[in-house]
Amino acid sequence: MWQLYHFPLCPFSRKVRLALGEKGIAYDLLRENPWEGREEFFALNPTGKTPVLRHSEKDVVLIDSQAICEYFEETVDKTPLILGTAANRAEIRRLTALFDESFFADVTNPILQEKMKKRIIYRAAPDSGLLRETIRLLHEHLDYMDWLIDNRRWLAGAQLSLADFAAAAQISVVDYLGGVDWRGHEGAHGWYRVMKSRPSFRPLLLDKMEGLPPPRHYSDVNA
Amino acid sequence: MWQLYHFPLCPFSRKVRLALGEKGIAYDLLRENPWEGREEFFALNPTGKTPVLRHSEKDVVLIDSQAICEYFEETVDKTPLILGTAANRAEIRRLTALFDESFFADVTNPILQEKMKKRIIYRAAPDSGLLRETIRLLHEHLDYMDWLIDNRRWLAGAQLSLADFAAAAQISVVDYLGGVDWRGHEGAHGWYRVMKSRPSFRPLLLDKMEGLPPPRHYSDVNA
Repeated sequence: MWQLYHFPLCPFSRKVRLALGEKGIAYDLLRENPWEGREEFFALNPTGKTPVLRHSEKDVVLIDSQAICEYFEETVDKTPLILGTAANRAEIRRLTALFDESFFADVTNPILQEKMKKRIIYRAAPDSGLLRETIRLLHEHLDYMDWLIDNRRWLAGAQLSLADFAAAAQISVVDYLGGVDWRGHEGAHGWYRVMKSRPSFRPLLLDKMEGLPPPRHYSDVNA
Repeated sequence: MWQLYHFPLCPFSRKVRLALGEKGIAYDLLRENPWEGREEFFALNPTGKTPVLRHSEKDVVLIDSQAICEYFEETVDKTPLILGTAANRAEIRRLTALFDESFFADVTNPILQEKMKKRIIYRAAPDSGLLRETIRLLHEHLDYMDWLIDNRRWLAGAQLSLADFAAAAQISVVDYLGGVDWRGHEGAHGWYRVMKSRPSFRPLLLDKMEGLPPPRHYSDVNA
């Protein structure tokens, strides 16, 4: 059985959970708080980051959300997520990296810092100036997603792909931590509602971070 | 013909140049300073980051160093760089991501900020406290590389792979900007000398950033 080291609001663990869900791969969840710097976890992954996926019988440890997704893309035929021509696959990987890196750095990471870590670890108030700038960058990203959705069926092209799951994973964390103001982003909002209603999304919408309840609309697939 | 938008000390452009060199793919270099925020470049790549690889005849634009490397891995058989079993390939991608993300965030990015951007853009003095902390993290990364090289022929296993080129690309930028103190890191140093002496490395060692000459040892493959 696969075991996934994660914490509920880790966007990269969420990306892996969505991909495993789509591919029909069973796994157990093991809770890991990377900020605690647990020695046994650093022995498993020298960067100390979630997600890590370990197989309890086979001697396989997979690290890094993209390496994990590529592994299952290569070994499991069901529901290809990096698909099409080489140019299509490059576009899927470009957008996946855009959400994993730029969206995370601009939006998800500062929101996790200000609204999760400061609340449950440091017991400090969030920096409202920094949050305002983060919301500004969130709207820039949503503008780009609106443009993609206006021009394509899914974010990376005609097919549902890993780029959609990488994006939805990031947005779901932002939505949990206070909600996304979708006004002016009908395209992106419609796309997110469709993503939220997929069966692979269900376990994420039920997952809670202790001491930090989500807003009521968070798990409502029509909101 | 392929055209690579890059700047000489961009570690991700260097990773792509090494991979293209190994695979025998010709390309022209186009100089791009991402910090200038040129509008035409943002129109090409919404994240505004190098590298971008464009084909002058075919309608193909490739963005993100890993997406570019995966594209040529899929389309060019010569010199496979993500090779072996699915588990081997996951290990190559894990280490590639470790150097692209953790090494870059811990070491290359602060050194680029303090020693390149402050010098040629902001005309400011580097923060010596921050540089000391960066050097400490560099030695932690080199310790890990020593351990890998003690246990394996190449960083990710028995075969030369993209992980070696991703690592060498980052280290070459650090070495350009003041040199790496290799004392106590014989394993990693021996590995880097081997990497430096590959023909694919030659163009990188000759490339100069204007106003910022490299130390004399930088292009010496025996140093």
